[in-house]
Amino acid sequence: MAFSIKKLSKSDTDFTTELEKMLAWESVSDGNMQKLVADVIADIRLNGDKALLKYSEKFDRFSVSSGNELVLGAEAIKAAFNRLPEEQQAALRVSAQRVTAYHEKQLAKSWRYTDETGVVLGQQVTAMDKVGIYVPGGVAPLASSVIMNAMPAKVAGVQEVVMATPAPDGKVSDFTLGAAYVVGIDKVFLIGGAQAIAALAFGTETVPAVDKIVGPGNAFVATAKQQVFGKVGIDMIAGPSEILVVCDGQTHPDWIAMDLFSQAEHSHDAQSILISQDAQFLDQVLASIEKLLPTMERKETIEQSLNDRGLLIHVDQLEEAKELINIIAPEHLELSIEDPESWLQDIRHAGAIFMGRHTSEPLGDYCAGPNHVLPTSGTARFFSPLGVYDFQKRSSIIGASALAASELGKVVSVLARGEELTAHARSAEMRIIKP
Amino acid sequence: MAFSIKKLSKSDTDFTTELEKMLAWESVSDGNMQKLVADVIADIRLNGDKALLKYSEKFDRFSVSSGNELVLGAEAIKAAFNRLPEEQQAALRVSAQRVTAYHEKQLAKSWRYTDETGVVLGQQVTAMDKVGIYVPGGVAPLASSVIMNAMPAKVAGVQEVVMATPAPDGKVSDFTLGAAYVVGIDKVFLIGGAQAIAALAFGTETVPAVDKIVGPGNAFVATAKQQVFGKVGIDMIAGPSEILVVCDGQTHPDWIAMDLFSQAEHSHDAQSILISQDAQFLDQVLASIEKLLPTMERKETIEQSLNDRGLLIHVDQLEEAKELINIIAPEHLELSIEDPESWLQDIRHAGAIFMGRHTSEPLGDYCAGPNHVLPTSGTARFFSPLGVYDFQKRSSIIGASALAASELGKVVSVLARGEELTAHARSAEMRIIKP
Repeated sequence: MAFSIKKLSKSDTDFTTELEKMLAWESVSDGNMQKLVADVIADIRLNGDKALLKYSEKFDRFSVSSGNELVLGAEAIKAAFNRLPEEQQAALRVSAQRVTAYHEKQLAKSWRYTDETGVVLGQQVTAMDKVGIYVPGGVAPLASSVIMNAMPAKVAGVQEVVMATPAPDGKVSDFTLGAAYVVGIDKVFLIGGAQAIAALAFGTETVPAVDKIVGPGNAFVATAKQQVFGKVGIDMIAGPSEILVVCDGQTHPDWIAMDLFSQAEHSHDAQSILISQDAQFLDQVLASIEKLLPTMERKETIEQSLNDRGLLIHVDQLEEAKELINIIAPEHLELSIEDPESWLQDIRHAGAIFMGRHTSEPLGDYCAGPNHVLPTSGTARFFSPLGVYDFQKRSSIIGASALAASELGKVVSVLARGEELTAHARSAEMRIIKP
Repeated sequence: MAFSIKKLSKSDTDFTTELEKMLAWESVSDGNMQKLVADVIADIRLNGDKALLKYSEKFDRFSVSSGNELVLGAEAIKAAFNRLPEEQQAALRVSAQRVTAYHEKQLAKSWRYTDETGVVLGQQVTAMDKVGIYVPGGVAPLASSVIMNAMPAKVAGVQEVVMATPAPDGKVSDFTLGAAYVVGIDKVFLIGGAQAIAALAFGTETVPAVDKIVGPGNAFVATAKQQVFGKVGIDMIAGPSEILVVCDGQTHPDWIAMDLFSQAEHSHDAQSILISQDAQFLDQVLASIEKLLPTMERKETIEQSLNDRGLLIHVDQLEEAKELINIIAPEHLELSIEDPESWLQDIRHAGAIFMGRHTSEPLGDYCAGPNHVLPTSGTARFFSPLGVYDFQKRSSIIGASALAASELGKVVSVLARGEELTAHARSAEMRIIKP
């Protein structure tokens, strides 16, 4: 077969260079696309629904005559759920319940204290008012994506969570709508692409302007999100999906092969990496890959992904994997080892950590509870999983007594005058109590 | 005098339109600047220190022959602090201590629980490794900006916090460096503009690549930060500063006038708004403005800001201000009223809330404790003040027992097959215990 996967050994002299080369990934910022997207956004801002209808016809071959026809209300969404097979209904409910339970632990609360100078200090934590979830159409229904993007907003207490998803040829998946039902979305707009992002950011006659837009999408959607950032909040910029599996050689090689496949099947530029101290085990996994690959529905995608970006890394001691984990800062980290607990304190950068041989990455994608929207391409160095904290925001609280304002005013006076901001200084000085 | 400030009454028929017009503010995204900045970034990535030296000479008239000469180490920073007048040293220390005490309350901790199905779930909270603080040069020394941007990173536990600031004609302010000393920054790079942001994002021979870049800057700096976003984290996109003062008419009009000045003096496009139910009081404040304006060092800036973007709003009942607060979502909200506490529950969107007549906004800028980096231009609808949470990140923890993996695997199987992701399904199915 044409298939081959790159092997590296940490003891190779050119190991670091080779690893960096394999990890490198940059989104291409194409000037043409930027311009195209900017034009679509300007059009939506100017022409609202009229422009939306035009783009739906052009890009989705979905022709309607008024904005109303782009909206699915609570009844239509419920009806879609009711059309699903019972086992899908049940699975969606389990997922929604577990994701809710986990995310409730993330809720931040307002806090307050009075310090020794008599100043009341704190933070008031509130939910955003309106959030829009974008769900791509096309390839496959993304029910889990609806749950993972919408549920943190619902748990945060966002009053209005709406969804936008394109309806190519007027069709939208019952599975996707069914997920919208279980998370409690009561309005779905059948719009997609840059025009959907523009509509959610600026509003049209039919679509409400929201405060934050989250969810995956193609390059047009991603570019549009970047362009409206600042007018609204957005989630992080996602690259291709990746997994790093660390295995001591004691897990069944078929399990590990399939775990690597589960990322590789996402896209041709997805990345699957396996580290082991057991060279023979690496060969066994390779054999499992070769055995299982022909049986996979998405074998072309898996093969290209493993060919182009897959890696089997041999280390002398398994402990050396810790350093590599922190360099790679993987989106998904599977610790398929005997005592994963003891490793945690040394892991500084990872999106999600799957502990032990039984915890396969797909558990996290669908129903363990944590979010499957995770930082990719090494951005776990500074980004976090999507969470309730992405839909809450904070207001600082400061309340000074007359005496405290007088005392602090003296400090402000020195600092503000040092910065040559004398209105600041005088505003504080006016509150200094004259002796 | 040429000065005039716009007056609105909430009962005017065109009030909403007029208010929206006055609030409108958009950063102009200039294609030329985008291109210029992209070229600088590419140059720094390709040529490192050599390019940095070239730009320092070109833009800052600061000519040195090696990267080393762009670095100030711990001793030079301490020496700058020692050269400051004692009252500035003391004021910087008070500010640093108070800001530290407040921010320590923001520290998030890791958490963990085992649910009823035997799955260990949680989040591991860690600090970023390296952070860069950008501090503009030029106009006035920005000591408070150093403290407000760096301290949350230090409190979060970031090991390496470095600072970049330009040295026009080779000069850098002792006041700024002194602030770097009190927050514990031990390396300052004398670089500015887009080239400084590029160096911090990608690294050069001298400058380390950091994980996140925060701090204010001109349009070049802001554009560069947007362009490197994704490679590194950045703080929010800041517009001009603004204040909304709500006053019941019982605060001295001179105080209120000076509070409005304290935002207006920042820049010609800063915005100061006053709301009161007392029309006579609005006139008194106007008289105070006219009386005090000629005495201000920055009177030209204040005058232009109040002329172009200032607003005095009359409401019939003071309570009506609550609705306006949530529409405006101000960066700074001063509640110069009798019982500010009772208003808090109705305020959904504000960067920082200053409670009562004595709590002037500059207290928050310098030393009350909360951060002065706050969401502007209505972005308090979805952004928060800069905080420790901006320098911590989270990794999800999932650990399933063999039995739990088997049970959850059945749910994954249904959902993943529904999404046509069969490698995901099979990875989970392999862990289902056969009966």
